[in-house]
Amino acid sequence: MQVMNAGWTQVEEEVARKAFDIAYKREINALIDSVRSKASCLNEIEDMWHLHDFLSVKRHEVDGRYDYNLPMLVFVFAGLIKDGWITVNELEGLNSDKIAKIMALSYM
Amino acid sequence: MQVMNAGWTQVEEEVARKAFDIAYKREINALIDSVRSKASCLNEIEDMWHLHDFLSVKRHEVDGRYDYNLPMLVFVFAGLIKDGWITVNELEGLNSDKIAKIMALSYM
Repeated sequence: MQVMNAGWTQVEEEVARKAFDIAYKREINALIDSVRSKASCLNEIEDMWHLHDFLSVKRHEVDGRYDYNLPMLVFVFAGLIKDGWITVNELEGLNSDKIAKIMALSYM
Repeated sequence: MQVMNAGWTQVEEEVARKAFDIAYKREINALIDSVRSKASCLNEIEDMWHLHDFLSVKRHEVDGRYDYNLPMLVFVFAGLIKDGWITVNELEGLNSDKIAKIMALSYM
């Protein structure tokens, strides 16, 4: 018998944790590249405040998104697929019900 | 008879406007250089949030400081001298009372 935690098997949890960490690393690296690029083009004070606004939005998004909480993971993964930070292939190992839910939510 | 505006002669207003604009340009240029430099060293997400915090503080400071309002200018110039954005020589043309007030405030 497999040990389940909030409807996730141990194998599913490992798949989820790995996908979650990959997405986080990708999004953060892309964000760092983007900030470096924007900063290298700074010429006016307005550019600097645009960078500040951009960072405010991204910090809010990242803080809100990367909360590793099993009951909420289908929503998190749907968002990550929608925004291109992971592919459904990287969720291989989750059961088909979860994959179906994630894909359905990702189209919303 | 010289035309006065809130206790400032026309010549004093010209001196003040010039010094104010010079300080603004210096502070903004230094800030842009500083943000570019910080951004070029970004490696971790914490660096990015430190940059965000830094921009939040600087935006608040700049917005608060550069309000061109004659009755408040002695306070503004005192702060600008204290923080090194202008020298007292750049206020030459203001009357000695104003210079004395500005210098006294700049030591507080």
